[in-house]
Amino acid sequence: MNSIDLNSDVGESFGNWSFGDDAAIISSVSSVNVACAFHAGDPSTIRATCTAAAAAGVTVGAHPGYRDLAGFGRRFIDMEPGHLTDEVIYQIGALQALAAVAGTRVSYVKPHGALYNTIAHHAVQAQAVVDAIRAVDPSLPVMVLPDSEIQRLADRAGLRTVVEAFADRAYNPDGSLVARSRPGAVLLHPDAVTEQVLRLAGDRQVRTVDGSLLTVAAESICLHGDTPGAVTLAATVRTALQDAGIPIRSFV
Amino acid sequence: MNSIDLNSDVGESFGNWSFGDDAAIISSVSSVNVACAFHAGDPSTIRATCTAAAAAGVTVGAHPGYRDLAGFGRRFIDMEPGHLTDEVIYQIGALQALAAVAGTRVSYVKPHGALYNTIAHHAVQAQAVVDAIRAVDPSLPVMVLPDSEIQRLADRAGLRTVVEAFADRAYNPDGSLVARSRPGAVLLHPDAVTEQVLRLAGDRQVRTVDGSLLTVAAESICLHGDTPGAVTLAATVRTALQDAGIPIRSFV
Amino acid sequence: MNSIDLNSDVGESFGNWSFGDDAAIISSVSSVNVACAFHAGDPSTIRATCTAAAAAGVTVGAHPGYRDLAGFGRRFIDMEPGHLTDEVIYQIGALQALAAVAGTRVSYVKPHGALYNTIAHHAVQAQAVVDAIRAVDPSLPVMVLPDSEIQRLADRAGLRTVVEAFADRAYNPDGSLVARSRPGAVLLHPDAVTEQVLRLAGDRQVRTVDGSLLTVAAESICLHGDTPGAVTLAATVRTALQDAGIPIRSFV
Amino acid sequence: MNSIDLNSDVGESFGNWSFGDDAAIISSVSSVNVACAFHAGDPSTIRATCTAAAAAGVTVGAHPGYRDLAGFGRRFIDMEPGHLTDEVIYQIGALQALAAVAGTRVSYVKPHGALYNTIAHHAVQAQAVVDAIRAVDPSLPVMVLPDSEIQRLADRAGLRTVVEAFADRAYNPDGSLVARSRPGAVLLHPDAVTEQVLRLAGDRQVRTVDGSLLTVAAESICLHGDTPGAVTLAATVRTALQDAGIPIRSFV
Repeated sequence: MNSIDLNSDVGESFGNWSFGDDAAIISSVSSVNVACAFHAGDPSTIRATCTAAAAAGVTVGAHPGYRDLAGFGRRFIDMEPGHLTDEVIYQIGALQALAAVAGTRVSYVKPHGALYNTIAHHAVQAQAVVDAIRAVDPSLPVMVLPDSEIQRLADRAGLRTVVEAFADRAYNPDGSLVARSRPGAVLLHPDAVTEQVLRLAGDRQVRTVDGSLLTVAAESICLHGDTPGAVTLAATVRTALQDAGIPIRSFV
Repeated sequence: MNSIDLNSDVGESFGNWSFGDDAAIISSVSSVNVACAFHAGDPSTIRATCTAAAAAGVTVGAHPGYRDLAGFGRRFIDMEPGHLTDEVIYQIGALQALAAVAGTRVSYVKPHGALYNTIAHHAVQAQAVVDAIRAVDPSLPVMVLPDSEIQRLADRAGLRTVVEAFADRAYNPDGSLVARSRPGAVLLHPDAVTEQVLRLAGDRQVRTVDGSLLTVAAESICLHGDTPGAVTLAATVRTALQDAGIPIRSFV
Repeated sequence: MNSIDLNSDVGESFGNWSFGDDAAIISSVSSVNVACAFHAGDPSTIRATCTAAAAAGVTVGAHPGYRDLAGFGRRFIDMEPGHLTDEVIYQIGALQALAAVAGTRVSYVKPHGALYNTIAHHAVQAQAVVDAIRAVDPSLPVMVLPDSEIQRLADRAGLRTVVEAFADRAYNPDGSLVARSRPGAVLLHPDAVTEQVLRLAGDRQVRTVDGSLLTVAAESICLHGDTPGAVTLAATVRTALQDAGIPIRSFV
Repeated sequence: MNSIDLNSDVGESFGNWSFGDDAAIISSVSSVNVACAFHAGDPSTIRATCTAAAAAGVTVGAHPGYRDLAGFGRRFIDMEPGHLTDEVIYQIGALQALAAVAGTRVSYVKPHGALYNTIAHHAVQAQAVVDAIRAVDPSLPVMVLPDSEIQRLADRAGLRTVVEAFADRAYNPDGSLVARSRPGAVLLHPDAVTEQVLRLAGDRQVRTVDGSLLTVAAESICLHGDTPGAVTLAATVRTALQDAGIPIRSFV
């Protein structure tokens, strides 16, 4: 039985503003994407999150984003690639120091929000992110959307890519995600989410919107931490995987 | 003949705003205090500065400051020590990554501006800075004002302290700096600055405002980079030291 | 029967981060201190808050703070008074425009957090705030802690001052607040809070920690919106005042 | 003889970072686009700029931009139109208050940098800017690129539009600007700039890159303040217009 990694975004509180229930999420997943203070997070939040992840034996990944606290990193910024490269290096380095102090280390990189979406298709920004990761540590894997520009460019650059699938997103027959603007784009019922996770983890397949089965060679499944019921859902998914005898284990 | 280190602040441009002439300063000093993007600097400026320092064989130090771009880190912020510790770790880590990419490394820490002034007397914030440096790397020296709170607490914590003197500041007979509000606080004439540097470097002494000679066991002399004529003055000081046969060499 | 004003802080969400339950608070008070985006708030949050206040007939006040999102304006910043004056003018002006678009107007000023606490005793920053308000509109009242520096300086400058009391803070016999570090500083039980509010509103008195009664000529009572149970408590206080026949009415 | 308005960007210093020579520019133009602190500027810089403009009898316009200090507002941000509307209202309001304190007023709006370029073709963001200006004051003119989306939408909304031309940009025969990536896009020689200004101001025409004459019904000519020699060039242009007997006068 293959194991599967579960990943979720954490460390996204900022100063006096709380966001998500990191403690609960950390208890359910095997990898956490830790904000690096450009789109969310502050140094003390980041450190505390790394400490909690270390205590739980959960793998820490860097979750760099655009420099945009007001937009939570969810807005495309048409920045120069050189600046993007340097901002990603800066963010990874900052997290490396806080992770080390917390007794853990940065084991992979997963870009956040609009940056994640952009580098799925924007070759120039995707290459900028690849350049940043290679410059910091060419052994750092990058988590990617399958069949994306970042996957191709990271592969070409010799970076390890970790394909992820989404627990709660509907898939088109060609493997792309159903656009959020379409009905049914997000799986809302816990049973549907659990079924998709079990099929992804057990068979590396998803049932697409036309009913067909599609192979998705995902090493990790993303659980959203900021939706209503996220914490309960994460625990449900974890239990279902355990009941099915599928180990939840980081890809690192 | 003992050598002496010359240090200056660099990397303080921000986005579209230039500040100082880093290239010229780097050609005159042996150590540069590189901004870490909390009070000034941005990742691309920081990286370019580290690249220039590496090319010149100049030692790179971290120059962390308060999170206050609008105030250039020159305003005391009454922050909690735990937050300060984590912000300093974050800044050092970010610089470490950019320095490594630029082919160099962070070899010491010199807090910036209001943080530097505060930790000369504010024991809680001073301890917070000590905690940060120890957490990141207990072998990192910290540059200090002599007879300061940060010096005492860093010594107690087992950190190496590097005492610095100021090329262009007048000294009181007790070794403290003449307050900036007093006339004559800043040496304006290049000859006076050069004389003070030669005496500090050659004899580890300063002539105080009452004319007496005082021993100042400085390992480094700070040259300000942002005053009018700073670049010319730095070159003049460098030449004077070379003419006197005093090597300019980093303390690392 | 004199009326009393109830005020509370609102508009302190920021981008993707929510804070407080403004809709509920607005339904219970007569005046709201609206964040101006320097310590919290963003333009869309501010506008929506003003729109809700206008719909409820609740008076809008400006709640300017230090430029410190990371610290939520709760940390003293040792800034130059001229800069503080201009930052307060800027914040009030920005809120005036959004309030007007929302169909209401800025009717008073209540500084936020560390700025509020600072100008209770720091004459230079207090005067800077007075200068800002006079410059924008000398008819704007400023809400103050009684017997504070800002009260004295605002009075001297001819500004109207509105004294406020605190629903949930214990008072010393001299009228000062019991320091938060002391036990019993904050009234936690709804009955105690309600009793204090009724005594303040009905008799303009508080029972101090030594049991004595003290006159507090407050025109407004501050209800905290960010404590656990704040919303319920505000509704409880409102009902108690209504039951006692004391009108809740803005001082404007 | 028709008069012509000359406009330039000012108030773009930020804290410790200087930018441009506002005093010199103000002495040469009739209208200044004052930064509002989102892309550049800080409240004290803005106030001082307004004070200087008021003293010189120069018209003040609001120069709102994207919230992007690190990018100087020169990077497109894919933000929601409602947020853009509210950010523009906020910026105009803040400037209105500082301008009033400085003895002047905001007389028009000219969006900055990437926002200016975006709303020339991006209908959604252009409408968002129109909505902001109408909400603040429907009598405020908006300065526009001719034949742009913002011009059409502002006209439709009943806003007054003020067409501007550029002193130092080469024009294609269809009236569009030669792309900056093409050789000759920017007129570098003072004689060429002066000739273009005189033809625009005297005849409302430009000579395009193919040598033909094109009518450009500009009410204002933009002089860049941040290019090398900007100040000298502005003075040269001013003198040439005066020598030609063409009054330099705001369109307001």
